[in-house]
Amino acid sequence: MKDHEYMELAVAMAQKAEWHSWKNPRVGAVIVKGSTILAVGYHQQYGDIHAEIAAYQQVPDKQQLIGATLYVTLEPCAHTGKQPSCATQMSTWGLKRVVVGQIDPNPLVTNQGVKRLRAAGIQVDIWPLPVSETINPAFHYFYKYQLPYVTVKVAQSLNGKISGVIGESTKITSAMVDEDSHTLRAYQQAIIIGSTTALVDQPNLTVRHVSTQHQPLRVIIDRRGRLKNTSEATRKNTLIITENPEFAKQAAHIEYLDVVTPHKVLQLLGQRGIQATLVEGGSELQAAFITDNAYQEIIIYQAMTVLPKTGLSSFGTTKSLNTLGIISNVNVIDNTLKITLKGVQE
Amino acid sequence: MKDHEYMELAVAMAQKAEWHSWKNPRVGAVIVKGSTILAVGYHQQYGDIHAEIAAYQQVPDKQQLIGATLYVTLEPCAHTGKQPSCATQMSTWGLKRVVVGQIDPNPLVTNQGVKRLRAAGIQVDIWPLPVSETINPAFHYFYKYQLPYVTVKVAQSLNGKISGVIGESTKITSAMVDEDSHTLRAYQQAIIIGSTTALVDQPNLTVRHVSTQHQPLRVIIDRRGRLKNTSEATRKNTLIITENPEFAKQAAHIEYLDVVTPHKVLQLLGQRGIQATLVEGGSELQAAFITDNAYQEIIIYQAMTVLPKTGLSSFGTTKSLNTLGIISNVNVIDNTLKITLKGVQE
Repeated sequence: MKDHEYMELAVAMAQKAEWHSWKNPRVGAVIVKGSTILAVGYHQQYGDIHAEIAAYQQVPDKQQLIGATLYVTLEPCAHTGKQPSCATQMSTWGLKRVVVGQIDPNPLVTNQGVKRLRAAGIQVDIWPLPVSETINPAFHYFYKYQLPYVTVKVAQSLNGKISGVIGESTKITSAMVDEDSHTLRAYQQAIIIGSTTALVDQPNLTVRHVSTQHQPLRVIIDRRGRLKNTSEATRKNTLIITENPEFAKQAAHIEYLDVVTPHKVLQLLGQRGIQATLVEGGSELQAAFITDNAYQEIIIYQAMTVLPKTGLSSFGTTKSLNTLGIISNVNVIDNTLKITLKGVQE
Repeated sequence: MKDHEYMELAVAMAQKAEWHSWKNPRVGAVIVKGSTILAVGYHQQYGDIHAEIAAYQQVPDKQQLIGATLYVTLEPCAHTGKQPSCATQMSTWGLKRVVVGQIDPNPLVTNQGVKRLRAAGIQVDIWPLPVSETINPAFHYFYKYQLPYVTVKVAQSLNGKISGVIGESTKITSAMVDEDSHTLRAYQQAIIIGSTTALVDQPNLTVRHVSTQHQPLRVIIDRRGRLKNTSEATRKNTLIITENPEFAKQAAHIEYLDVVTPHKVLQLLGQRGIQATLVEGGSELQAAFITDNAYQEIIIYQAMTVLPKTGLSSFGTTKSLNTLGIISNVNVIDNTLKITLKGVQE
């Protein structure tokens, strides 16, 4: 096996974390001696041990590590918390070489991990492709722009309707598709909806059907303050963003902005450390994000059924003459298409 | 190699004909002696020699055929036209065995080809799967029901609009997608549109961008006779179907039906030997075919752009609470999705 095959294995290990690493990047590691794979590991859960240590723990005889090579998808951490950093620990194992998938974009780590390993006499090679960014797009986007990575999620019929009757909620997708969309939620730290969706659907926005230790923050955009005197105004794990100064005084979780725009909402969420957010609806809120080019991805669940032509159209009054994105993936789940578009903007 | 591998090769040969066999089925043949493939062939063009003969011509020394096995995706023909039938010719080659992909549904041939071969002392095995039906769905459907195989073709935006402004034609797809949809046309013997589409778009409905020797019949459904006194009423290679008896008297290519329904239109086309037809538009004509369950396939070209929500919705007033079909294929062409649905009805 060659370097790229070991790195591919490390990537496959990283992906095993699925959504469980949450705000932490998904990271995988492989330890190789000669042509023998001594161990593999990954960062299994937010707060748990890192991938390098997980792999290390799998090596029964630590003497074997002397002269070994460790492949890891992301630069080992260098900041000391309750435990010494991974780079510091790795410096004592006798490794000959470390192949790093990508430099950590977190300024607390950037180049520090590599520096510490090299200071310990270990050969460090940096992989030429953005290995970790492919696995952790939101994590890398957040540290590059200090803004959350935005995914717009749409569930529509074959004829582009999100509801059969305007003002009512229509069930479009099946239980199997719901599970997939809850998995999508599990990757987020926040879910944004508009006030009409909050009033009509009263969604919990919680992750269900799949297990998680973290629930995303509910974010409701309510410019005028329509949720005043509703239960939303006192609800837990909720952030309401409004242009209504009186409403904003009502509770600590109601945030005032003089003008609410998608970009200002994202700045606010970025300041709160939100790396990944989903814009779930309604269609006019999504239209605002798309028109302002304030999104990185659009995921469309499209059922093969037809809703009345008088129903509510998806994408509202989106103003864009261009393609909304490049098709990066198409899956079929229970006879529903899942279309993933990557936005073309920077 | 085993029987199924030779049959797969014969299927691959058959598919090389693409749309050029037109009303004839696409057929492939492979001749094998021991473990040597002596020759392959396929029915290249409507009116040309059949697959078995094409393969035969590729064998330089006809002595090699003695004791050979011939795999063919469809039963060899038994009716004599200008040439003796394939089965008759094959009886003289010295073949030991013929493996037939599927019995020919054309009543002129059904079981006759097999009978003739067996009468010549050749072992004939019938393949247990509907090999030819997979390659030639319209051919088999036509001979089973005496009705054309109907494909509904829709070009829509991501939000289910077929036109940005009602009453106007909007270009939705790119040149590369157009080429694909002209390929789809090339497989048809007729293309059906409604009178509004005829008046607004005045489409030629010809096959362009790809080469063909056969142009499909233009079929216009014009119940009221709105095309009276238009150039459509005198146009070549056109069939107009109307409920207006006065209009029907105007020209030979205008056909009167007391009540025009999708099923009656299809019966009429079936009587004229149309095996495959495309319902191209408008959305209300397509809605009528779908609501009446008068279709076998729906092909949707879906661009990743958004048209105004006030535009014309795809699928019109289709009345169906169920899924319109099972997703059988999804392709990406020039960032446009091509979704193929197979109808679930008999």
